[in-house]
Amino acid sequence: MLVGMTTNSDEPQPRPRRRAPAGAAVLREDVTEAIRAAVLEELAAAGYARMSIEGIARRAGVGKTAVYRRWRSKQHLVLDLVSAIAVQGLPAPDTGSLEGDLRLLYEVTSRALRHPVASQILPDLQAEAARNPDIAEALQKALREGQDGVAKGIVAAAEQRGDLRPGADHALAVDLISGPLYWRSVVIRSPRLPKGYLDALTRATTEALKAL
Amino acid sequence: MLVGMTTNSDEPQPRPRRRAPAGAAVLREDVTEAIRAAVLEELAAAGYARMSIEGIARRAGVGKTAVYRRWRSKQHLVLDLVSAIAVQGLPAPDTGSLEGDLRLLYEVTSRALRHPVASQILPDLQAEAARNPDIAEALQKALREGQDGVAKGIVAAAEQRGDLRPGADHALAVDLISGPLYWRSVVIRSPRLPKGYLDALTRATTEALKAL
Repeated sequence: MLVGMTTNSDEPQPRPRRRAPAGAAVLREDVTEAIRAAVLEELAAAGYARMSIEGIARRAGVGKTAVYRRWRSKQHLVLDLVSAIAVQGLPAPDTGSLEGDLRLLYEVTSRALRHPVASQILPDLQAEAARNPDIAEALQKALREGQDGVAKGIVAAAEQRGDLRPGADHALAVDLISGPLYWRSVVIRSPRLPKGYLDALTRATTEALKAL
Repeated sequence: MLVGMTTNSDEPQPRPRRRAPAGAAVLREDVTEAIRAAVLEELAAAGYARMSIEGIARRAGVGKTAVYRRWRSKQHLVLDLVSAIAVQGLPAPDTGSLEGDLRLLYEVTSRALRHPVASQILPDLQAEAARNPDIAEALQKALREGQDGVAKGIVAAAEQRGDLRPGADHALAVDLISGPLYWRSVVIRSPRLPKGYLDALTRATTEALKAL
């Protein structure tokens, strides 16, 4: 989604490490990264609806043209960002047991959800998804490739090991795995999880999955 | 939160059914209801951040003053609405068994979450709660008195009957009960639940609760 085909760049042109396509201006990677960081901060502070390209540029310390040279609109910027985060993905646990895999997933997810940026941006993008099909699609894709994908992998591995009944409803399994921690962290916005919470959640969810 | 102490009302003054407080103008109940309905529609269509008193008034077919006579600001309007919905509450199931209570709660909740207004407004208010402490507090209160309160009641009743181990973590129990259906309906935005979904969810959640 990078718009890199303009030739009248007003940015300093460093010697490119890789050869740029003929006719393409080189977009400074550090400027791109500064803009991405500014978008995350603006999203968290103002929210999608109130966020403006002007505010992003100001926060990044660049001109508006530097933003528009890379992304056509606020929506393209956010879609690109969501996709980039989804591609990074979550590590897929492989501990050899269903309980071990769940416990590790919860550790990683709870840490990610505790990040103030995540806990502010996620609800905001979800709100926007309710009335913007493009954002909804990008978010669904990010979920499928991220949290959902990892949870499905855990269920499939457990099935193969014989820890779960074959033919269990994988979509319901994902809801059982992902729902409770999301409810607690993002919906209830519980500031911190009590000691032993993730252990108890792991035990309970394992039993729930075995009942499928 | 109704602002009813102004005397220069430009509304038609019907004969009040109950005597109004001395010096208070009578606010027409049908106008108040039209504004409340318009707020729900505007929230769903535009979202909290983009919604304006002007847009609400236009949708309700009234002047802006009719809105401001009742609520001081957009925020007061939405807070009042959230409180009103919370007070209505969910019916507390009392079927005599943990599985029966859960199944009934899921039936009612899934129907409520399927309503397009709920599935658009909830994420939006949650997004706003991430940066507006007053909205956050009202939403927490509504949750505690609504979904959370009912779930806690189900757990307490099951404990008394001996269906659940005494001393189980009630907050975690609520997460286990409320999380999966919310994840599926509001986060994944699954348009409809497959046949047998609520039955399977009930069985799995019952096992999860018994493991607490």
